[in-house]
Amino acid sequence: MIQETDAVVIGAGPVGLFQVFQLGLQGLSTHIVDALPYAGGQCVELYGDKPIYDIPGIPVCTGHELAARLTQQIAPFQPQWHLGTQVASIQPQADGRFAVTTSQSAQLIARAVFIAAGVGAFVPRALKVEGIDAFAGTQLFYQHLPPASQLQGQRLVVHGGDDAAVACAIQAATSAEGAAASVALLHRRDVFNAPPDQLAQLQALRDGGRIEAVVGQITGIVREGERLAALQTLTPEGAEQTVPVDVLVVALGVSPRLGPIADWGLAMERKQLVVDTATFSTSVAGIYAVGDIITYPGKRKLILCGFHEATLAAFAAAEALSGKPVVLQYTTSSTHLHQLLGVGAAGIDNG
Amino acid sequence: MIQETDAVVIGAGPVGLFQVFQLGLQGLSTHIVDALPYAGGQCVELYGDKPIYDIPGIPVCTGHELAARLTQQIAPFQPQWHLGTQVASIQPQADGRFAVTTSQSAQLIARAVFIAAGVGAFVPRALKVEGIDAFAGTQLFYQHLPPASQLQGQRLVVHGGDDAAVACAIQAATSAEGAAASVALLHRRDVFNAPPDQLAQLQALRDGGRIEAVVGQITGIVREGERLAALQTLTPEGAEQTVPVDVLVVALGVSPRLGPIADWGLAMERKQLVVDTATFSTSVAGIYAVGDIITYPGKRKLILCGFHEATLAAFAAAEALSGKPVVLQYTTSSTHLHQLLGVGAAGIDNG
Repeated sequence: MIQETDAVVIGAGPVGLFQVFQLGLQGLSTHIVDALPYAGGQCVELYGDKPIYDIPGIPVCTGHELAARLTQQIAPFQPQWHLGTQVASIQPQADGRFAVTTSQSAQLIARAVFIAAGVGAFVPRALKVEGIDAFAGTQLFYQHLPPASQLQGQRLVVHGGDDAAVACAIQAATSAEGAAASVALLHRRDVFNAPPDQLAQLQALRDGGRIEAVVGQITGIVREGERLAALQTLTPEGAEQTVPVDVLVVALGVSPRLGPIADWGLAMERKQLVVDTATFSTSVAGIYAVGDIITYPGKRKLILCGFHEATLAAFAAAEALSGKPVVLQYTTSSTHLHQLLGVGAAGIDNG
Repeated sequence: MIQETDAVVIGAGPVGLFQVFQLGLQGLSTHIVDALPYAGGQCVELYGDKPIYDIPGIPVCTGHELAARLTQQIAPFQPQWHLGTQVASIQPQADGRFAVTTSQSAQLIARAVFIAAGVGAFVPRALKVEGIDAFAGTQLFYQHLPPASQLQGQRLVVHGGDDAAVACAIQAATSAEGAAASVALLHRRDVFNAPPDQLAQLQALRDGGRIEAVVGQITGIVREGERLAALQTLTPEGAEQTVPVDVLVVALGVSPRLGPIADWGLAMERKQLVVDTATFSTSVAGIYAVGDIITYPGKRKLILCGFHEATLAAFAAAEALSGKPVVLQYTTSSTHLHQLLGVGAAGIDNG
């Protein structure tokens, strides 16, 4: 299905979220895309529970709290969310608009595109073993367990040593529905990095024989016909091992990838998009960029700077799309902005 | 007394306050100066109780609330406050520093100056009548009553038609100590703009003969020797009147004045200071400017843009003062910044 919109915002971190807000104040509709399955970006992924002290007017908040506050702030503008997906391509159209395609095959036609992609899309770290990619989605899954129906009676191997891997193994071993035949937790050493309560639960499940910890590195795969039948591993002592598998969940964490952005023909400098600080336009008219992914003289990679950049980008886009100057209005006094925000009609004195 | 400091910030509106914060993160001490007797600037003076919707991460707050939040945020850096006063002059010194003098004769020696003066200093609207200025501080006062001892037994005239004037007249007419002999409220028409309860109290005091409303415009003054003896007024009907006066309180509100800033030799364009957007330096090295008082390509007069400007100005000043590049640190992870902020030692996991 092709969906038309004023703007596509790539990246749902704090700056991408505020980009939606500023576009909303300009009366422009948005679709917002992020590789992570939730809003907040790096801010939630890397320091969700850690305190941030330098958001102006907020003496302290966590990454989660900041994302929640911004999500609440943009709610009046009802952005269309595309989470857990990436923008695969951007193609200029003959009419000056852009065709934006996501990795989940959504087709968006946008009058302007805003890249707020930070350090890139946070995607699962891939398992690099020859031939494994062929099983993605059937026997190979990343970061999360497949639906219970695909686990039932299967030999599950979870690969990883951090929270996400431990949580997957525990979840599979304690699930009432769709119980796996066996659960192995495969990691290069017998040390796991997770909260104490999780580690205690893991130990109990290992003691009870519900989870088997397998120590080793994956070196190859064994096929039976078209199926993935086993993993070949190497123990720390250098011994070869074969680990039978029906379902493999790789949970090695996520890492940022610039991805296809580098292929869109936009001017870059040291892997950063070059922008004009008056408009935050990239080298392609109609494509703007804001936040940690851009560079300009004096640039500092701070969230609060991204808020400013998103604001000027929204003004510049509104002027380019309307073909006339946009006069600044204040949210304190403008009845037009109050209508867009859905506030001010009752109970608040704006006199 | 001469006080030395790293920085003087001129203007205690939201942007000036955040300037203090960003300088604090750079380890730089500040003195902050504002013409108003409280922090918050225009934000408090013009829309203190009105909602603001576009501060990132704060879906709604009033001007008062924003000023309170920022004041709390900068508290760890213990700025020295100079409120109810203005910067009168800035003189470059031979050693590269600046001598900053306030209208209350404070002498500050600063390594850098940050002008965050918005639309200018909010100063009382002056009464423009020939010869009246000579009585300022003895018989003429602005916005507020003089101490009770100077009112006792005197004929008081309050000039103005808004809240401040009505409040002054009521206060004088109901004061137990230092009661004035008479209280006149002089306004160009018999209509006053104040909250309903204040208007009701005014009416009661007029009915009781404690306040006399005098309708007219001041056209001149009558001297007796070196004293101000009476005001000459013109009624709406065109009749001349003489209103005896010992103490005159002019309460015509405050209005912003750019004041001496225009005389400091800084490059300006349409009454705005011209800055470099990489450093927010004015045309004079060591003097930075941020917020509504500046102009650059794409500039929008929004509080959130001022936050960005103050941040880059602080980085630029820190680099200029130290003579070396300043590496970005994050408040989420930097133990150095945690020490400056006085946080993180106990109870918060920064791991």
